[in-house]
Amino acid sequence: MERLPVLDKGFIELEEWMGGDAAVVRAARICYQSVARSADADERLIRRELRREPKVNTIFEHAVLRWHIKCPIFVARQWHRHRIGSFNELSLRYCIAERAYYVPENEANLDEYRAHMEASFDLYERLVAAGWRRERARAVLGTGVYTEFIWTVNAWSFMNWLTKRLDKAAQWEHRQYARAAYRIWQGIMPITANAFYEAVLKPLGLEVEE
Amino acid sequence: MERLPVLDKGFIELEEWMGGDAAVVRAARICYQSVARSADADERLIRRELRREPKVNTIFEHAVLRWHIKCPIFVARQWHRHRIGSFNELSLRYCIAERAYYVPENEANLDEYRAHMEASFDLYERLVAAGWRRERARAVLGTGVYTEFIWTVNAWSFMNWLTKRLDKAAQWEHRQYARAAYRIWQGIMPITANAFYEAVLKPLGLEVEE
Amino acid sequence: MERLPVLDKGFIELEEWMGGDAAVVRAARICYQSVARSADADERLIRRELRREPKVNTIFEHAVLRWHIKCPIFVARQWHRHRIGSFNELSLRYCIAERAYYVPENEANLDEYRAHMEASFDLYERLVAAGWRRERARAVLGTGVYTEFIWTVNAWSFMNWLTKRLDKAAQWEHRQYARAAYRIWQGIMPITANAFYEAVLKPLGLEVEE
Amino acid sequence: MERLPVLDKGFIELEEWMGGDAAVVRAARICYQSVARSADADERLIRRELRREPKVNTIFEHAVLRWHIKCPIFVARQWHRHRIGSFNELSLRYCIAERAYYVPENEANLDEYRAHMEASFDLYERLVAAGWRRERARAVLGTGVYTEFIWTVNAWSFMNWLTKRLDKAAQWEHRQYARAAYRIWQGIMPITANAFYEAVLKPLGLEVEE
Repeated sequence: MERLPVLDKGFIELEEWMGGDAAVVRAARICYQSVARSADADERLIRRELRREPKVNTIFEHAVLRWHIKCPIFVARQWHRHRIGSFNELSLRYCIAERAYYVPENEANLDEYRAHMEASFDLYERLVAAGWRRERARAVLGTGVYTEFIWTVNAWSFMNWLTKRLDKAAQWEHRQYARAAYRIWQGIMPITANAFYEAVLKPLGLEVEE
Repeated sequence: MERLPVLDKGFIELEEWMGGDAAVVRAARICYQSVARSADADERLIRRELRREPKVNTIFEHAVLRWHIKCPIFVARQWHRHRIGSFNELSLRYCIAERAYYVPENEANLDEYRAHMEASFDLYERLVAAGWRRERARAVLGTGVYTEFIWTVNAWSFMNWLTKRLDKAAQWEHRQYARAAYRIWQGIMPITANAFYEAVLKPLGLEVEE
Repeated sequence: MERLPVLDKGFIELEEWMGGDAAVVRAARICYQSVARSADADERLIRRELRREPKVNTIFEHAVLRWHIKCPIFVARQWHRHRIGSFNELSLRYCIAERAYYVPENEANLDEYRAHMEASFDLYERLVAAGWRRERARAVLGTGVYTEFIWTVNAWSFMNWLTKRLDKAAQWEHRQYARAAYRIWQGIMPITANAFYEAVLKPLGLEVEE
Repeated sequence: MERLPVLDKGFIELEEWMGGDAAVVRAARICYQSVARSADADERLIRRELRREPKVNTIFEHAVLRWHIKCPIFVARQWHRHRIGSFNELSLRYCIAERAYYVPENEANLDEYRAHMEASFDLYERLVAAGWRRERARAVLGTGVYTEFIWTVNAWSFMNWLTKRLDKAAQWEHRQYARAAYRIWQGIMPITANAFYEAVLKPLGLEVEE
């Protein structure tokens, strides 16, 4: 499956998926016990469902995606607030933290920033060596440190995340993950992804390209 | 995919699934950043996770199943109370009800029962012909009438449903669906299914065979 | 607390609530660590949050309502599809069904309809007397029979239900419950209810009055 | 409402609640349409429901609690993984971080630890002064820094959190919050809290006192 790099050391990868556009159509057609009458009837059905208000969200929940993400902790904290979905993250209670932290571009004081982040890993290692439990020693590691998790989410909850994280008011770093995720998703659910862009993202002025 | 008949006119069919036992292992191993050291290490991991209390439920949520079910409305009503999962049901607001109703075995008054159910369909059709909306005319159809729906559910929520619906206190008709579902599930997630039987169902005295 | 009659024999009653408009403000202000600077600042805050897109739904989840509802089974079935909330319903596995069914106004064949519904209760009672379990005998009772349940729901999920059930495409009978609920809710969360009407319902063309 | 101090600078406070033991009884009795026949019948009902397996969780969901918590970020991150409930947290995108961080007792290198945490706040302030957005400058603040949030949760989900966070395998710091929360909860839902201790916590060997 496709993996896209995000930020300086992060990535997002689609590990597995189920259902896709076909599952959306399957779910809508069982309600009406209807059958497609022409080649593009399914496409029109999905477009119609995404345009109408209020939307019938359940039909989009039968398409499911599992992502693997590496991102700074401050991005992960926002991400984990999306409750409809399943997360499993590497635990710094059991693992030793990898020395990987986010370095933004084009900011002042970057040398000082880097020196501090390195110092925090040095201290972290000394504390662990001195007998601190890993779960406690991590207190010194900044939220710019990278973490990794997998995320299983249905297409409806995923679209909700996209709408919130592609928003101009969302944090720039998180937005980069949303854009990369949209690009990968478009490859496997093209009808829903394009209809969602036309019906929801574009009217809100949200862009999926840089 | 496999479809099993249940009751006199119902069925349960697995339409699609994702992840399986491998996704459970994937999710557990990202927490610990561990790798399998031997052939049966994954199997032992799943067994251990299902035995421990409290359980780490999230690792089972990355395995997802989509079922197609035909069952009496009174069974569907219980089923839809399980909130972690996605349902789409055929709608008697838009469709004309199929003349299919549940007839139990070995009960008294079955002729009278059948005659009444037939009469309710006759009346339903007369009401629709007389101009009642379908959504209103269905008021005369008993909860023994069959309905159909699709259900997308993760393995953790599915196991919760199994525990509740295999229970001796659960309605006999619902239990038949749970047993059929268990048998199909065992074919695609054998390690989790067997470990779940040993760690949860058996200690509760619940049986998956008639 | 207030109870409003709905349909011929149903009702909706607010049994208890928590938080109200104040909880919405409390939740929003903890994010920004802000304090109200003037008397109507809180009101403007709620209005602003309901107008913006995408909305920050979590701040509305700290206001919680418990309702008691009596409605036909076909309405309850739609209601229970709203998964963010808690339901407990009287169970026809344990209780004997009350002889109460919905009779619509201004329809043809109402005598025939009433006679059939009465006959279904007569048969139900004969089946129970003949030894059928209640949970099985209910198969003959139509979905027009009244049921009762309590529903605890946060204000965000409640607003989602209102949007879907006040819709012109929603079933007329369900819409009557949504309108009655809105009227009661307006009495206890006036700022949120009015702002919701202005920001969401009115632009969709949905009316809360007959 | 009661506030208890936890760790060196944290606390947990119950801000508001609804329903309590009475709501549990209310929800159970609507299922059976039953009434209490004696003074302690309600207490026995709650005890019975918590002892049986599988439990009828919905009846405990009509009791709702709103907590205000101040805890280290590493504790908050675990807390926010509990998805059935509503969180609003102070945002370091909008607010300037308060110079408050967790200092464990009885560990080696505490002077060095404190010096590093102070240095991280010094750097944070320099970065903000140099034009970094707050949301980005927070990358240098360790997960031992205190945060604040409110949490609205029903009693069932709260009991699930207690079971997981009172566990001996849970992080010690998180366990202190669970113990304090249990003590406060016991004051407002004594029947459920005591029955839960007897039926669930004690058999698992979990202690609510130090």
